[in-house]
Amino acid sequence: MLEDIEGNHRLGQERLRVRRLGIDTHQEPVAYLRADSAVCRSEGFTAQSRIYVSVNGHGVIATLNVVHGELVSSGEVGLSEAAWRLLSPREGDLAAFSHPSPVESFSALRAKIYGHELSGGELGAIIRDIVGGRYADVHLAAFITACAGDHMSLPEITELTRAMVLAGRQLTWPRAPVLDKHSVGGLPGNRTTPIVVAIVASCGLCMPKTSSRAITSPAGTADTMETLAPVNLTLEQMRSVVEREGACLVWGGSADLSPADDVLIRVERALDLDSEGQLVASVLSKKLAAGASHVVLDMPVGPTAKVRSPDAASKLGRIFDAVAQGVGLTVRTVLSDGTQPVGRGIGPALEALDVLAVLRCDPGAPQDLRERAAVLAGHLLEIGGKAALGQGRTLALATLEDGRAWQKFCAICQAQGGMRKPGVAPHTYTIVSSKRRMIAGADNRKLARIAKLAGAPKSPEAGVFMQVRVGQTVDKGQPLYTIHAQTPGELSYALEYARHNSVFMTVEEQV
Amino acid sequence: MLEDIEGNHRLGQERLRVRRLGIDTHQEPVAYLRADSAVCRSEGFTAQSRIYVSVNGHGVIATLNVVHGELVSSGEVGLSEAAWRLLSPREGDLAAFSHPSPVESFSALRAKIYGHELSGGELGAIIRDIVGGRYADVHLAAFITACAGDHMSLPEITELTRAMVLAGRQLTWPRAPVLDKHSVGGLPGNRTTPIVVAIVASCGLCMPKTSSRAITSPAGTADTMETLAPVNLTLEQMRSVVEREGACLVWGGSADLSPADDVLIRVERALDLDSEGQLVASVLSKKLAAGASHVVLDMPVGPTAKVRSPDAASKLGRIFDAVAQGVGLTVRTVLSDGTQPVGRGIGPALEALDVLAVLRCDPGAPQDLRERAAVLAGHLLEIGGKAALGQGRTLALATLEDGRAWQKFCAICQAQGGMRKPGVAPHTYTIVSSKRRMIAGADNRKLARIAKLAGAPKSPEAGVFMQVRVGQTVDKGQPLYTIHAQTPGELSYALEYARHNSVFMTVEEQV
Repeated sequence: MLEDIEGNHRLGQERLRVRRLGIDTHQEPVAYLRADSAVCRSEGFTAQSRIYVSVNGHGVIATLNVVHGELVSSGEVGLSEAAWRLLSPREGDLAAFSHPSPVESFSALRAKIYGHELSGGELGAIIRDIVGGRYADVHLAAFITACAGDHMSLPEITELTRAMVLAGRQLTWPRAPVLDKHSVGGLPGNRTTPIVVAIVASCGLCMPKTSSRAITSPAGTADTMETLAPVNLTLEQMRSVVEREGACLVWGGSADLSPADDVLIRVERALDLDSEGQLVASVLSKKLAAGASHVVLDMPVGPTAKVRSPDAASKLGRIFDAVAQGVGLTVRTVLSDGTQPVGRGIGPALEALDVLAVLRCDPGAPQDLRERAAVLAGHLLEIGGKAALGQGRTLALATLEDGRAWQKFCAICQAQGGMRKPGVAPHTYTIVSSKRRMIAGADNRKLARIAKLAGAPKSPEAGVFMQVRVGQTVDKGQPLYTIHAQTPGELSYALEYARHNSVFMTVEEQV
Repeated sequence: MLEDIEGNHRLGQERLRVRRLGIDTHQEPVAYLRADSAVCRSEGFTAQSRIYVSVNGHGVIATLNVVHGELVSSGEVGLSEAAWRLLSPREGDLAAFSHPSPVESFSALRAKIYGHELSGGELGAIIRDIVGGRYADVHLAAFITACAGDHMSLPEITELTRAMVLAGRQLTWPRAPVLDKHSVGGLPGNRTTPIVVAIVASCGLCMPKTSSRAITSPAGTADTMETLAPVNLTLEQMRSVVEREGACLVWGGSADLSPADDVLIRVERALDLDSEGQLVASVLSKKLAAGASHVVLDMPVGPTAKVRSPDAASKLGRIFDAVAQGVGLTVRTVLSDGTQPVGRGIGPALEALDVLAVLRCDPGAPQDLRERAAVLAGHLLEIGGKAALGQGRTLALATLEDGRAWQKFCAICQAQGGMRKPGVAPHTYTIVSSKRRMIAGADNRKLARIAKLAGAPKSPEAGVFMQVRVGQTVDKGQPLYTIHAQTPGELSYALEYARHNSVFMTVEEQV
C-alpha cells in the first residue's frame, strides 16, 4: 500500500538517453522531448515550460520543446547545441529531469519592470543567473526592455558594469597603464585595431588586445588577424606574447570576459533595441575584464551609423565618462566620420590586405584607414603619456613612416606563432557599371551580405573588394567591385544576390 | 557580363523542400536550415535571424535555427509545428526565402518602451502584427514588459481591448442582453460554468458560452463539457443551439475570438508577469468578441490565488469597471473564497461528475461548487433583469431545486449533438493516510500535476478524486485521494510522483 510521504520535485523516475540534434537555437538551451514522455505529460503539452536536465552531475535549465512524431525516439531526449555545450555529455548518456528551483533574481527583474532602482546586489544576482543559463530568451528580453528607454540611472549602469565584470574572468597585467580601444557600432572595413595596436606598442605602451569574431558581419577583427597570425591563444600564451612585445592581437572568445555581455547582446540585436545603459555597460565591462586602465572609444557618427548625430554622441559620451569614472577607467571618446565604409576590402583576408598596405606604407594603401588609425593611436599615445596633448597623431604617423609600427606588428605576429600571408580566393567576378554615372552612396548592408554569401568569414579569402569610392564618377563598363569566393558555388550564391540587388545609389550623368 | 541593377530582397534562388519536423515551439514559427544552405551563409551562423518563408503563395516570418549535421538533409528546410500550421504545405513542397519587410509597429513598441502613451492606431498596429505572426517571442516579451508595472493608462487599456477585439472574429447575437461569465485565475475544480449557464438560460436569458481547453491545467471547461456533449461546433451549429435553447457550452478555440490574447498569454505565463492592464484587456476582449453585453467576473481571493488580497481585488475591479465602461460592457465583479480547491474531481470526467451531481441535486453533491454557482448565476440574473438586487441567488437555487436548470442543461447537451455519460477510468489507486492527522492544507499545484501525469486532459477519465477536505481529521489507513488512469503505465507515472511528493499539509494529533 502506498503512503503519502514527503518528497522532492523530481519529474518521475524517467531517464532518457541524450541525443545531440545539432540545432543551434542561439544561446538558449532547449530539450526536445516526445509528447508521450512522462515529463511532457507532467508539464502539459503546450506550455513553454522550463525543466532542469542533469547528466553525469552537470545540470542545465532548458526550455521544453515537445516533439510529435519520430524525430526523437522513445527513450531519448534531444538537446540543442547550447544545452549540449553546457552539459557536455557523451552520446547516449542518461539524463534525469526535475523542476528547476525558482530563479531568485526574477523578483529583482520584476522590481525593475515595476520601476524600482536596483542595487548592486540585485544586479549582480540577475547577471549571475543570466550567465548561469537560468534566463530564457523571453526573460532576457524582459530585462533588456526594462533597462532600455533611459530607465537606468548612472549608479545602476555603474553597478551593472561591475556585475558583468565579476560574472566572468578578469585579466591582470604586470605593467601600467594598460591601453585598449573600442569602436562603437563598427563600419564595414573599419579595421583600425591591428594598426593602432602596432603603433601604440611600438612606442612602448602595453596593449593586450582581445577581439571578437564576426557575429553577423563578414569579418571581426579576430577573423582578419587570423589570416595574418594565430589568434586562438591560451591565456598563458597571450601573457607570454604581451611580456615579449608589450601587446597582442588575439581572439577574446575563449577568455570568458564579461560572458553576460555575449548573452545580452544577441537578444538586444534581435530586439533592435539600442539601450545606452546596456551599451556602456557592455563596452566598459569587456575592457575592465580584459584588464584595461585607459581606453579610447571610436564613435563613428553618421545617418546610417549606430550613433546618428553629434548630439547623440555627446550624450552617450557623457554616460561613458561618468560610468568609467565610477569603475576607475580613463576613457577618451573620439568622434569620427560614419557616413561611408573604410578601406577597400570586406572580408577577413581582403581587410587584412588593407591593414598590411597601411602598415607597409604602400602607395596604394587606403588613406582613410591610415588616417583613422593614426588619430585613434594618437589619442592612446596621449592618454598613455607618450605624447603631449595634440601631438599623438603626428607621433603615430611617424611610427608608420619610419617602419617601427610595421616591425612591431611583425614581431607580435611572430610571437603569436608566426606571421602568415592572407590567402587569395581562386574564384572572382567583377561587377561593372552598365552606364556612365556618379556614385552617390553605397549600401553597406548589401555589400556585407554579398561578402557573406561569397563565404566570408568562414572562407577567410572570400568577400568583396571595392573598386570605386563614393563621390567618384564611373564610365560604362568600369569595374565597381569584385566578388572573391573559395568555390564556384559560393561565387554563384553571391552573384545571384548581386544580380537582384543594387548596392550603389547613383546619379546618372546627362549625355 | 553581369550588370548592377535594381532588385528585390530575395535571399537567392535557393528553393528547399519543406519537411515537418514535428517540433512544437509553442507559437513561434521556426525554420530549421542547414549551416551550409545559402540562407544561413547570407544571415550568418549565430544570429537570431528572422526570415520570410513562402510556400505556394502562403508566407510566414520564422525564426532561423541553424542545423549542423544530418537532422535536415541538403535541399530541405525543417519547419516547426507553428510554421507548418501557418503555411499548411504538403510534405516536399518547395519553399522560397526572403527578408521579411520591416515590422512597422516596432516603432510603436519602441515608443512604449521609451515611456510614450500609445494611441489606438498604434496599439492596433501592434496587435495586428502580433496576430500576423510578425513578432518573435522576444518581441512579445518586450511588449508585455513595457506594458507591465502599471505602465498602461486607462485609455491605453481601453484601446488595447478594442484592438484585440478587432484583430479577430466578432460574434453578434439577435437577442439582448447577452450574458457571460469569467473566473480570474481559476481554482482547481472550480467548474461552475456549466451550472451557471444552465441556471441563467433556464430563466430565459441568452448566454452563448465559449470556453477554453486546458493549457497547463488538468482540465478546461471545454474539456469537461466534452465528456457530457460535443463542444467542437461550427459557428452555424453554435448559432442554431443558441437560437433553440438560449445558450450553449462550446469550445471557443475555433471561433478566432481575440487571437492576440492566446499569443500574449503564453509569453506572460513564461515570464510569470501578471500585468493588470493586459489581464483586463485579455478578459474583456474575449467577452466583447464573443458578443457579450453583461459579464460577471468571479474573482477568487486567497494567498495562493491569482488575486492575493481584498485590496488587490478592489484595485483590479476598478480597472475592469473603467475599461468595461469605455468599451460599452456592463461588468459586475464578485469576490469569492480562493483559499482551497472546489468540488471533489480534478480532470475532465471527474469534474463533470461534480457538475452533474449539483445539477441533479444529488445528496452527495459538493456544496461548495453548488453555492459558488448559485452566487454567480444570481448576479447574472440580477444584471440580466430577471431578479431584483439581492434576489438572484435565491432564484438560482430555486432553478436547481425544481429541476429547471437540469432540464435546460440536458436540452443544451441534446442541441449540441446529444448528451453523453462521462467515462470511467479502468485503473484506479487510492492513497491512504499513514497515520492519524488533521488535513491543514492541500497543494493544488501538486494535485494538478498528479492528475496530468495520470493522463488528464488527454485521457478525459483520468485525474484525481479527493476523498478528504481541508479541516478534516483522518485516521491511519483512511483514503486521502484516488488516482484515475486509462492505462497502467499512466497510473504508475502518477503513482511514482505521488510517492515522492506530499500533497497535504498536515498536523499530527497527539497520541
